[in-house]
Amino acid sequence: MPSRTPVSVAQYLFARLKDVGIRSVHGVPGMRLQFASLDYISQTGLRWIVNCNELNAGYAADGYARVHGISALMTVAGVGELSVSNAIAGAYAEYVPIVHIVGQPSLRLQKQRKLLHHSLGDGDFEAMARMSERAASKSVQLRCAAQAPGMIDEAITHSWRSSRPVSIILPTDMVHEPVIAANLSHPLNMVPTANNYVTERRAVDAILTAFRTARQPILLVGGYNVRFTKRREVQELAEAFGLPVFLSASGRGIIDEEHPIFHGLYLGDCSDPNTAEMVRSSDLIISIGNIHSDLSVASLSWELDPLRMVEIRDGLVQIKGKDYHGLSSPELLQTLVHRARDFTQTQRQSQHMSHTLSYREERGPLNHDWLWLSLSDWLQPVDTVIAETGTSNLGIWSTRPRDVTYISQYLWASVGYSLDACQGAAAAVQDSGHPNRRTVLFIGDGSFQFSCQELSTIVRHNLTPIIFVICNNGYTVERLIHGRHESYNDIQVWQYRKLLEVFGAGRGSYQTYQIRNKKELSALLQDSSFNDDSTLRFVELHMDQRDAPSDLQILTQQLVAWDTQPQRQGV
Amino acid sequence: MPSRTPVSVAQYLFARLKDVGIRSVHGVPGMRLQFASLDYISQTGLRWIVNCNELNAGYAADGYARVHGISALMTVAGVGELSVSNAIAGAYAEYVPIVHIVGQPSLRLQKQRKLLHHSLGDGDFEAMARMSERAASKSVQLRCAAQAPGMIDEAITHSWRSSRPVSIILPTDMVHEPVIAANLSHPLNMVPTANNYVTERRAVDAILTAFRTARQPILLVGGYNVRFTKRREVQELAEAFGLPVFLSASGRGIIDEEHPIFHGLYLGDCSDPNTAEMVRSSDLIISIGNIHSDLSVASLSWELDPLRMVEIRDGLVQIKGKDYHGLSSPELLQTLVHRARDFTQTQRQSQHMSHTLSYREERGPLNHDWLWLSLSDWLQPVDTVIAETGTSNLGIWSTRPRDVTYISQYLWASVGYSLDACQGAAAAVQDSGHPNRRTVLFIGDGSFQFSCQELSTIVRHNLTPIIFVICNNGYTVERLIHGRHESYNDIQVWQYRKLLEVFGAGRGSYQTYQIRNKKELSALLQDSSFNDDSTLRFVELHMDQRDAPSDLQILTQQLVAWDTQPQRQGV
Repeated sequence: MPSRTPVSVAQYLFARLKDVGIRSVHGVPGMRLQFASLDYISQTGLRWIVNCNELNAGYAADGYARVHGISALMTVAGVGELSVSNAIAGAYAEYVPIVHIVGQPSLRLQKQRKLLHHSLGDGDFEAMARMSERAASKSVQLRCAAQAPGMIDEAITHSWRSSRPVSIILPTDMVHEPVIAANLSHPLNMVPTANNYVTERRAVDAILTAFRTARQPILLVGGYNVRFTKRREVQELAEAFGLPVFLSASGRGIIDEEHPIFHGLYLGDCSDPNTAEMVRSSDLIISIGNIHSDLSVASLSWELDPLRMVEIRDGLVQIKGKDYHGLSSPELLQTLVHRARDFTQTQRQSQHMSHTLSYREERGPLNHDWLWLSLSDWLQPVDTVIAETGTSNLGIWSTRPRDVTYISQYLWASVGYSLDACQGAAAAVQDSGHPNRRTVLFIGDGSFQFSCQELSTIVRHNLTPIIFVICNNGYTVERLIHGRHESYNDIQVWQYRKLLEVFGAGRGSYQTYQIRNKKELSALLQDSSFNDDSTLRFVELHMDQRDAPSDLQILTQQLVAWDTQPQRQGV
Repeated sequence: MPSRTPVSVAQYLFARLKDVGIRSVHGVPGMRLQFASLDYISQTGLRWIVNCNELNAGYAADGYARVHGISALMTVAGVGELSVSNAIAGAYAEYVPIVHIVGQPSLRLQKQRKLLHHSLGDGDFEAMARMSERAASKSVQLRCAAQAPGMIDEAITHSWRSSRPVSIILPTDMVHEPVIAANLSHPLNMVPTANNYVTERRAVDAILTAFRTARQPILLVGGYNVRFTKRREVQELAEAFGLPVFLSASGRGIIDEEHPIFHGLYLGDCSDPNTAEMVRSSDLIISIGNIHSDLSVASLSWELDPLRMVEIRDGLVQIKGKDYHGLSSPELLQTLVHRARDFTQTQRQSQHMSHTLSYREERGPLNHDWLWLSLSDWLQPVDTVIAETGTSNLGIWSTRPRDVTYISQYLWASVGYSLDACQGAAAAVQDSGHPNRRTVLFIGDGSFQFSCQELSTIVRHNLTPIIFVICNNGYTVERLIHGRHESYNDIQVWQYRKLLEVFGAGRGSYQTYQIRNKKELSALLQDSSFNDDSTLRFVELHMDQRDAPSDLQILTQQLVAWDTQPQRQGV
C-alpha cells in the first residue's frame, strides 16, 4: 500500500492485524460492527469467522492465538463486551494475546449522553469498559484519527509483548476517518524492549550462583505465556546446563516426551512417585512458564518451597523469593544460555524416567484409565490437542504424546471453552497452510452442551478436527466432589452425533462414530482411514458415569478437603 | 420451622427465597456450588433448573422474574460470574429483580491468597466481584454466620424494592455454618420504606399543578420496573384523572389494548400518525416506567420535551425537568389517586383510536407485515409473550394483543436473550400452577443460534411453550443497516426443528411445523389442536431474507443516519 495515500482507521487496523500474520478474525456481527466495517475485513484479505455467540467467539480467538501466537476478535460494546468478558479474563489469566476490537456508538452520541440500546440506560457508555478493563491488560479508545495509527500499533505490540489480551475501542464515527498510512510501510516492531542491563545482570548472576551451589537442579516447564514458552529456548537452556526437564500439566508439548532431556510430568500428588520425589528433593527448581494453581500442577505443588525456586514468567523473575521486575524472559534465557560457559558443568546424573505403558488388555467396556493410555501411540507429533477442563485435561495426564501443540485451561478452567478453542485452533491450522496437521479435541458431554452450536461454525468453514465427546451423562468432576448419585449432576441426554446433520453438514463431509468398548476403540484408532485430517470426525465415547480418571479422583478428594473445612472463628 | 433450632446459612437462604414465592432456582453447577449445597435446594422444596451455560441461566432467571416478580440464580465465582455478567447487566438496565448467589472459594483459602482455578492467578478473589458489581445494584459477601441472616434479608428486600439484581456471595466454608432461624418465623418485609412526607407532598403538588394548567395531558406507560409497573396503579390513575393511556414498546400488556382508556402505541416515528400527533402535541406527558432509549420508544422520542413531562420511575420522579429523589412509585401513585378529588376534572375529549386491522388476504409466501397483523386475534389474554430483539420485538408493534404478559428487552437488547427468557418464563408459569396459560416465543434464526441448547432445558422440565422461529438465513437487522446482500450477514442454515429429537425429546412429547405461506399459517392458527399449552410446539416460519417489518426498516434507517455521520473536529 503506497504510504502517502490515506487509508481509513479500519483499513489501518485490519492491515496491522494482517501484518502480524492473522488471517481470520473471529466475532459476532452487530450494528456497531457493521459500521466498523466488515467490508474492510475481506478487502484486507482476512477471513471473518462469525461465531454463534460472543463468548464462543472469545474462546475461539483464544484457541487461534495458542496456535498462531496472536489473534483478533470483534464484538459490540455493552452486550458483546460483557458476554465475552469470561473469555477475555481467561486469556488474561492464561497469558494468551488477543486483540479485541469493540464497536462502540459514535463519539457524537456518547457526548450527548443519548440513551441507546446495549447501555445501562444512564448515558454512561464507559461503564462496561470499566467492568471489563480489569480483564484486558490494556485498553485504548480511538477518539482522534491522527492518533489512531499510533494507538493501534501500541495496542497490538503490547498484546504480543505481554502475551495478554488488549482491547481497541472503535466508535462508529471513527471507522472511516482517514489516517496517514506511512507506518504501514514498515512492520510492527514486536521485539520486546531490551532488558535493563543492570537488572538482568543481577538476575542472571543470582541464578548462576544458585546453580553453582545446587546439587540437583531441575527445569520445571509450564505453558503459561503463549508468546514465550517455546521449545527452542527451553531446550537450549536444558542442554547448556545439563538439566533434566519436567513438564507441568500446562507444559505438555513444549518438549517432546521422547527426548532424552524429558524426565517426567510433575503433577503434584498425581505424579508418578519417582517423578514427584525427583522434583520435591531438588534443591533448585528453575520454573518457567508456570502458574502454580490447584489444577495446573495439582494442588500440593503449593508446597514447593519458594526458597528453592527460580520462577521465570515474562515480566517477573523471582529468585529464591526475591523479585526482579521488567525482564523479558526470552532475552533473559538467551543471556543465561550465553553465559553457560561461565558455568562449570558437573556432569550430573541423568536419571531418565522411562514410561513404558502397558494397556493392551482389550476386553470390556471403555473406561478412562484405559482410554488415556491407549491414546499415547495414536497422537502424532504435529497434532494440535485440545482438552476440556475435567475428565479430559486430567485424564490426559496418563497419555504420553510426542511433541504436540497442547491447549487446555488449567488456571481459568472455564467449562465449555474447549469446543470453541478447537474451532479457533483448527482455523489457525487451516490458515497456516500446512496440510496433514490434525486438530484433536477431547470433551465431556456436559461441557459440550455449553457451546454446542460452535460445531456449526466448524461445519461452515470446512474445518476438519477429530472430536471425541465423552458421553457419561453429566458432570463427572461435580459428581466426584459431591452428590455422586444425585440427579442434579445428570444432564439431559442428547444424540450428540446427530447435531452435525441438524447444523447443515452435507452428507459425505463428515463421519460419526459410537464407541462403547475397548475393542471398538482399538479398531478405530488402528484404522488408517480414520487417522487423517481429510474430514470432520465426531466420535462418541460412551462410558459409565461412575468411572473417572484416577488422577481426577485424587485431585477432587484434595480439593474437597481444602475447601470445606469449616471456617474458624476470627477468619 | 421452629425458630429456636439453628439452621445452616444455605438453609436460611433457600427458605427466604421460598418465602418470596420463588419455586425454581436457575443456574449451572460447579465445584463451589456443590458445597453451597445443592442438596438444600430440594430439601427446601425448590426446583433446581440446570441450564446449559451460565449466560443462559441468567437470562432464564430474568424471564422467571418478569413473570413471577423476582427470581433466583446460582453460579460459581470467576468463570460463572463473568459469563453471566451480560444477563445481570441486562436485568439492571431493565429493572428486573434477580437474587444472584455466587459460590466462592472458602474464606480460609482466600485469606491465604492461594492460586486457585477460576482466578486471574494473582490471589485476588475480589477482582471478578469488582468487575460485576457495577451490574448488580447491591452485593453482599457472607463472611460471618451471625450476620448472614440479616444480610440475606437485606439483599432480597433490596432486590425487590429497587427492582434490580443483587448478588449474595457465599464462600464454601459459610454454607453449613449454623445460624439462628428466628427471623424465619416472620416473612420478609417487602413494603418499601415510606416516602418522605415533605418530598412526596412537593412532588404530588407539582404534578397536580401541572395537571390543572394542562389542556391535553396523557399517560405514556412503559414496562421498565417489573415490580411496580402494574396494571392496577396505572388504571386507577388514568381513571381518576380521565387520562388517555398510550403504551410504549416495553409497556405492552400493562393495559388491555381493548380497554377504552387505551389510545395507542407510541413508537416514535414508527407510531400510527394520529397517535404520534396526540403524544407530540400533548402539553403534559405523565410518563411511567419508561426509559426513552433508541429502541424502546423509537428514536425520535428523544425529542419529547422534558419541560412537558412528568417522568415516574421507581426512586426518581422528574417533573418538568426538576428531580425528586427517593420516592417509591407505587406509594406516590396511590397518593396521586387519593388526591384526585382535589382535581377539578374537566371532561376531556377521549379520542379513542380504533385500530381495526385488515389482513385477510391469504395468498402468497409468508411475510412480516402479514405475520404480525395476523397474530392479533390468535394471542389470548392470559398468554405470556416473549419477543427477541430485532424483527420480532419490532414486528410485534403491528400486533394488537389483548392483555398479555409481555417480555422483551428494548434497552439492553441482547441478542439470544429470548429463548432462555422463554424457558424461565415457562417455568414460572408452570410454578404458578395456573393451567392453560400459554408461553409464546418469537425469535429469529440468528438469535436462536446464540442459545439453542436451552431448548434441551425446556424439554427436560416438560415445559410447553409455543416457539416460533423466523427462518430467513441470518441477521435481518444487520442486513438493513449494512450489507443487505453480503454473505457476512448470512448464517449457517440449520434444520431447527430436528434439534428436539437430538436434545432427547420423546416422541409424542412435542410437535413441529414448517410454515412457508400465509395459507398454511392461517390454517395453523385456526387449528384448535394447535392452540393450547398441552405440548411443546416448535414452528419454523420460513420467510424471504430480504423481507422485514416496515417499522424495523424505518428505525434502522434512523439509527444509521444518527450513528454514522462523520465525526466533527473537536468532538
